[in-house]
Amino acid sequence: MHVAATSKVSKKPKKQIVTISGTSRPNNYTSKVLALVNDELDKRGVKVVHFDARELDLSFPGQPETDDAKRLTEAVKASGAVVLASPEYHGTFTAMTKLIVENLGFPSALKGKPVALLGVASGRIGAIKTLEQMRGMCGHVGALVLPSPISVAGVRNVFNEDGTCNDETVEQMVRGLAETTLQFMHEYVYPRYELEQMVRGDEKGWSTTV
Amino acid sequence: MHVAATSKVSKKPKKQIVTISGTSRPNNYTSKVLALVNDELDKRGVKVVHFDARELDLSFPGQPETDDAKRLTEAVKASGAVVLASPEYHGTFTAMTKLIVENLGFPSALKGKPVALLGVASGRIGAIKTLEQMRGMCGHVGALVLPSPISVAGVRNVFNEDGTCNDETVEQMVRGLAETTLQFMHEYVYPRYELEQMVRGDEKGWSTTV
Repeated sequence: MHVAATSKVSKKPKKQIVTISGTSRPNNYTSKVLALVNDELDKRGVKVVHFDARELDLSFPGQPETDDAKRLTEAVKASGAVVLASPEYHGTFTAMTKLIVENLGFPSALKGKPVALLGVASGRIGAIKTLEQMRGMCGHVGALVLPSPISVAGVRNVFNEDGTCNDETVEQMVRGLAETTLQFMHEYVYPRYELEQMVRGDEKGWSTTV
Repeated sequence: MHVAATSKVSKKPKKQIVTISGTSRPNNYTSKVLALVNDELDKRGVKVVHFDARELDLSFPGQPETDDAKRLTEAVKASGAVVLASPEYHGTFTAMTKLIVENLGFPSALKGKPVALLGVASGRIGAIKTLEQMRGMCGHVGALVLPSPISVAGVRNVFNEDGTCNDETVEQMVRGLAETTLQFMHEYVYPRYELEQMVRGDEKGWSTTV
């Protein structure tokens, strides 16, 4: 189901997609992989607001909220969707990825938000366990976790140090996450807004109804 | 199966049990619950080395290891077993609990170590999801995750602010985690050492063979 081309709202979705790389490890591969998603979204004319954990100052629960936490939470709230990426450490997501979720407020800014998941692993099995645990966590806070999360296995072999991908299939798969996310927005989010616009006739931005 | 009362080693296990409270939130309930386990172990003559995340200075992967991380890792390595406790945030363990695991080295100090799990939640459902995810994580790094993890539900109702428990059944259940851990050591860890001592005749401490 696609929104009619005559629709003003669906032709020019003004809202942003937030992408988050969930590790602060220097020179990490997760940000290299996520850069492909950012690039693909950018190519498709979507405004991307990117957060990289290497540049985030976040506090643990019970401590005062940082400015970065406020900035992150506001950006997620204002977004049409989120792409959340984590490397696999110890068969699950990173402490930093969890800390990011812990900084998104109660109720979480992820509540009702479409969230696409990206897992990155050095090993051959990939980040399947990480993605399952992220799905559980994001679902718990009320996010609309999208089907078809992407797991990149053997990341050190398929991505070069400079961030280029040397495996076309992997690159297509990763870029596909941008497509998955946009497709969900086109098929479910925009129509919902369109219909609400028709019925109510008000001027609320579509993402506020997600 | 119990070790014979004449056994020198099993009568006087000198090795410690490490207990870890995985949240730095001020005045948290997890440390109140874990205090009962510590008390029960203490009553049974076991040396407890307790770590409270409120007092731990740990860094994220890629940053220099802190003194606390070294101290924690050495204590876990020297222990006969570990009790790991986390509150449930967002349907899973805390970022801090994961950060603790991320600070235990590669291979992890938890590898081959008996680990008893304790989950604490405000809600009625308890910390079941957290315990499952902790089981996955600890199992992934090679820990011997003990059966019968303990989930404390509605923690704010059953524990008072001063740390006392007002529900005898819950208190017995929590104290039972000490029993579970010691029972595992008596039934599996000590006999393994005993047998090895008989066969090899060397003087290695039993916990080093776990």
